[in-house]
Amino acid sequence: MNDFIFQSPTRFVFGRGYTDRIGAEVAATGAKRALVMYGGGSVVRTGTLARVAASLDEAGVAHEEYGGIRPNPEVNQVRAAIEAARTFQADLILAVGGGSVIDAAKATAFGVPYDGDVWDFWSGTKIEACLPIACVLTIPAAGSEGSSSCVISNDELNLKRGVNGDIFRPAVSVLDPELTFTLPPYQTAAGVTDMIVHICERYFSGVGPVPVTDNICTGLIRAVMPAGTRAIEAPDDYDARATIMWTSTLAHNDIAGCGRSSSPTSRAGGWESHGLEHEISAHNPAVTHGAGLAVIMPAWMRYVWREDPARFLAFAKDVFDIEPVDEGEEAVADAVEATIDELQNYFVSLGMPKTLGAFDAVPADVDAWLETLEQNKGAEFGGFRRLNMDDARAIYLSAF
Amino acid sequence: MNDFIFQSPTRFVFGRGYTDRIGAEVAATGAKRALVMYGGGSVVRTGTLARVAASLDEAGVAHEEYGGIRPNPEVNQVRAAIEAARTFQADLILAVGGGSVIDAAKATAFGVPYDGDVWDFWSGTKIEACLPIACVLTIPAAGSEGSSSCVISNDELNLKRGVNGDIFRPAVSVLDPELTFTLPPYQTAAGVTDMIVHICERYFSGVGPVPVTDNICTGLIRAVMPAGTRAIEAPDDYDARATIMWTSTLAHNDIAGCGRSSSPTSRAGGWESHGLEHEISAHNPAVTHGAGLAVIMPAWMRYVWREDPARFLAFAKDVFDIEPVDEGEEAVADAVEATIDELQNYFVSLGMPKTLGAFDAVPADVDAWLETLEQNKGAEFGGFRRLNMDDARAIYLSAF
Repeated sequence: MNDFIFQSPTRFVFGRGYTDRIGAEVAATGAKRALVMYGGGSVVRTGTLARVAASLDEAGVAHEEYGGIRPNPEVNQVRAAIEAARTFQADLILAVGGGSVIDAAKATAFGVPYDGDVWDFWSGTKIEACLPIACVLTIPAAGSEGSSSCVISNDELNLKRGVNGDIFRPAVSVLDPELTFTLPPYQTAAGVTDMIVHICERYFSGVGPVPVTDNICTGLIRAVMPAGTRAIEAPDDYDARATIMWTSTLAHNDIAGCGRSSSPTSRAGGWESHGLEHEISAHNPAVTHGAGLAVIMPAWMRYVWREDPARFLAFAKDVFDIEPVDEGEEAVADAVEATIDELQNYFVSLGMPKTLGAFDAVPADVDAWLETLEQNKGAEFGGFRRLNMDDARAIYLSAF
Repeated sequence: MNDFIFQSPTRFVFGRGYTDRIGAEVAATGAKRALVMYGGGSVVRTGTLARVAASLDEAGVAHEEYGGIRPNPEVNQVRAAIEAARTFQADLILAVGGGSVIDAAKATAFGVPYDGDVWDFWSGTKIEACLPIACVLTIPAAGSEGSSSCVISNDELNLKRGVNGDIFRPAVSVLDPELTFTLPPYQTAAGVTDMIVHICERYFSGVGPVPVTDNICTGLIRAVMPAGTRAIEAPDDYDARATIMWTSTLAHNDIAGCGRSSSPTSRAGGWESHGLEHEISAHNPAVTHGAGLAVIMPAWMRYVWREDPARFLAFAKDVFDIEPVDEGEEAVADAVEATIDELQNYFVSLGMPKTLGAFDAVPADVDAWLETLEQNKGAEFGGFRRLNMDDARAIYLSAF
């Protein structure tokens, strides 16, 4: 087990109807003025935003709404939200939404006390101060409700970049699975995919085995897979929705990575699939991150598994109860390929695409993706196996 | 999945040689004066206390040592430590030891700002203030390094009682598995037993199933069992020691109970085995808590499993890969009994006792245990199945 530092201080307030608790929770942090950020209006239509506003009113927390945060949130929106927060003199940023809204809220929260341009933080500047962040999660997927991660796009530069820091983990996250009863099947599926990939990025970090952490990883995946299927069949199945929501959080608050990182202060995993996918959704913001991952991760797995077949066989056994029929190389390959097939077929069974063609992408797009990939990741990246731009090209092309 | 509130804010600093980081970690909390509490002197003999002192000196943290905390710590020691902390004007309590020392440190930390007698907190008084707590863990077992629990004995009243509160979870816990290389086999075994029981108390809470949490529970047990065996064979096996140490923490920081509690603000589980065992070690402080649990939990399981055979079959499958040979009642009973046997045999394989006779206890002692059990728990207690004093007597007697 490698050395690690783990701190997940967020207060998770999880249960039926708990949306109405957000006001009391925000007030308990000491905050008096909340900027309430949200997305494209579904929280208005479903009444969630009104419930949040009523709850804040009841708790005596002043608030101003700031809507319109797009999927794959863009730095110009963050810049505008920072101005709005300053004008309102917000002392807390409250996200009502999924990962895009929460990431925009995080960026706003650490942008407010900073004198320079907020994009500096994705160019190496250290985050030294941050307003407290709260959230009411509506889309379980990105895990931003508990994570130290914040991903923002920059359209002008054609970049989508992540920054990590314990300083901007949410102070409190209200997790109310009932809010997700109305989530469309595609969003449900993309969310489940995203959380499974968050776990896999850590599980296949190239470090280990780490029995405690590995069993948490495979146990989370075994729990969430049938819940995903069930939630698409019966959108108001509370236990399925609750299983998905709690998995979303644990997939990305780093409990699934303890002891699997090459450095105690960095996140476990090489994040190869995320790196590869980010370029696709950066160039085409209509691509849902989870759907991109459903295509890319199996392609990455097929390309790299020979680097450490034992690791893939452990995954095969613990997630799918697949074992090689004998010790020969061919049987190992069969077992690993069957495992990757099972995982990909599961994503497809939820309604996720199988190839990049589903996004109207064509092989000629790959050059542009590789250009920004190299800008973001350098000439080589990855933990399980180092990938250069030729490897990345091969993985992209194999996914068409 | 039942509603829950989960917050485990402790900063876990986990790794080889990390004992020497404690000074910097304490200083980072803002503390300037630490009362350093420890136990019977093993931390003096091994040099751990000197390393902690040097690390505090280097970080500019003033400190005073307060040793002699006994196993099953007693309230009079806590009262004296509170006076010492006040005289020293400590602004942080640092435990260097196992669960007994950490629990005594917690009690000292919330006793210092309280005007009345600290025992009031085990008689229903609410804890409103608490000094920050740090620890360097030397005995992985009780999970106090991450838990909201504090158990103290009162010899005068023949009581051993626990109190729970998020307010006294440690701010920072340094987990250095190398410190446990010198832990005697009996302590190692009792610790592994204690953590497995912490998980089982939650798993058999009578609420559920909760797939995410259940898979975490069974995954932790599967990880720690071979590590326990290995650590006794090869005391300096780092990965085994690390697996044990991290399991200790996760077994009791409540991640293994989310969604399994009958109330969102209380801990999951009925804590029947702990309730039953506490009377044994309260009346005979020479009994190591984990060793008492190794005897009591299997006895409790054999007494109650018919209340919910499906729950025990899920445990059988996920921990031991045991399944009934057919659907008949006899096959179910065989599978469950075989599972309890496997668990008990595992404890015995580590060197734990199988019966209460190992503690020089005799059936005539049971009356005295029941008297204080009823004082502590009332006429009925438990979550998986309600137990009255006749049930408790039957379980005790079955364990001779």
